[in-house]
Amino acid sequence: MFDAYGTLFDTQSVETTVEEAFPGWGSVISHIWRMKQLEYSWLSTLMDRYEDFWSITQRSLDYTLRSLELACDRQTLEGVAAAYLDLKHFEDAPVCLDALAPYRRAILSNGSSAMLASLAERSKLVRSLDHIISVDMNGAYKPSPRAYMLVGDVLKLPPERVAFVSSNGFDICGAKSFGFTVIRVARSPSGPSFVQAEKPQMDERRLFALMRGQLETFDYPPDFTVQSLAEIPDLFERKVR
Amino acid sequence: MFDAYGTLFDTQSVETTVEEAFPGWGSVISHIWRMKQLEYSWLSTLMDRYEDFWSITQRSLDYTLRSLELACDRQTLEGVAAAYLDLKHFEDAPVCLDALAPYRRAILSNGSSAMLASLAERSKLVRSLDHIISVDMNGAYKPSPRAYMLVGDVLKLPPERVAFVSSNGFDICGAKSFGFTVIRVARSPSGPSFVQAEKPQMDERRLFALMRGQLETFDYPPDFTVQSLAEIPDLFERKVR
Repeated sequence: MFDAYGTLFDTQSVETTVEEAFPGWGSVISHIWRMKQLEYSWLSTLMDRYEDFWSITQRSLDYTLRSLELACDRQTLEGVAAAYLDLKHFEDAPVCLDALAPYRRAILSNGSSAMLASLAERSKLVRSLDHIISVDMNGAYKPSPRAYMLVGDVLKLPPERVAFVSSNGFDICGAKSFGFTVIRVARSPSGPSFVQAEKPQMDERRLFALMRGQLETFDYPPDFTVQSLAEIPDLFERKVR
Repeated sequence: MFDAYGTLFDTQSVETTVEEAFPGWGSVISHIWRMKQLEYSWLSTLMDRYEDFWSITQRSLDYTLRSLELACDRQTLEGVAAAYLDLKHFEDAPVCLDALAPYRRAILSNGSSAMLASLAERSKLVRSLDHIISVDMNGAYKPSPRAYMLVGDVLKLPPERVAFVSSNGFDICGAKSFGFTVIRVARSPSGPSFVQAEKPQMDERRLFALMRGQLETFDYPPDFTVQSLAEIPDLFERKVR
């Protein structure tokens, strides 16, 4: 069971589209947008005011542009938000999914069914997936147990028989807390060379890497950690199965 | 009904303590820490793994230091976290609270009862408060309705008869969604001079101001907006009552 955004698909691949619409602001907008997008998924669930991820994606982009005082009409907003319908997959995704057959391979994602269908088809990963599950079916975003619960409903397996793969810290601890066997993909750059400097200087890339993609300090660590999805088929044969 | 962190008390006043423990890193640590502290309050509630705010405050500081690869023993961690027990109040807080008497004045905060008691006593604001309510009583953080629900339990008033004051975007929309009359304190610096520049350059202060303190784009805007708490007593007489 794979997370989509940040695990199979690179959310930072929206930067090119954003940069075209707002020259000079591609990096700043795309990083704040992604952080607010996650935040809005959590807040809407907490407020009992669930909205699907296409709505959340547009609201969080709207917030980002307003904060930066960048003017934007509705059409431009939707055009930029549509970058989330055509994310690049990470290079290690197809080889991992193909090598895992004949095990059942699936996605559990915050994305709406329409967003996920678009991603899977445009990236051609659809050929290597048996199920695509949107949290939209239960109206709650990860890391709510109501989101993870859908996996059992579809696969008819107890949580511990599911290998859940994610690069997102909140998703890793949420999935582990729920009871899955969890594999972390450590995609974020880290280490002193990346985050530290003589005089600590922060920009949006460093702050994003610090805020997201690191392991959370809740008591639900992953069972396994890999640097690339390509390591998973072998790990799966040796350890998980 | 006042929010505490960021509304009556300045969370950035921890920076001095942090800077003493980690010279050169005061600003970076205190900003990331606050963002992760809120995130952890949301994630723990979503995962159905509630822990009190003292625990959340320490976990989020631990995360921040680990991400930055700054070594820290348990004693130092707790010592730095204790900065949250002695936050400076904003200058406009006492005058506002005093002028509002004889209306009942209260705090509803994420802080644990012990943390809030410490804040109220050390700042002397305790003299001007009739109730101090911790979300801990219901085991769910804002913006969950289970947090706001406590206000009615204590004050015996319907939500619309409660004037709820906050500077935090997520708290403003959560309180409005719940049904309170909401007053926003627009504390964050904003505007082109602050966020924009010829070449967009971001540091942790700008990113924090962009991520937090701005109005969220959910459909629950505040009823009133003020620049300072000092405006509230007059607003209250004219409009809210």
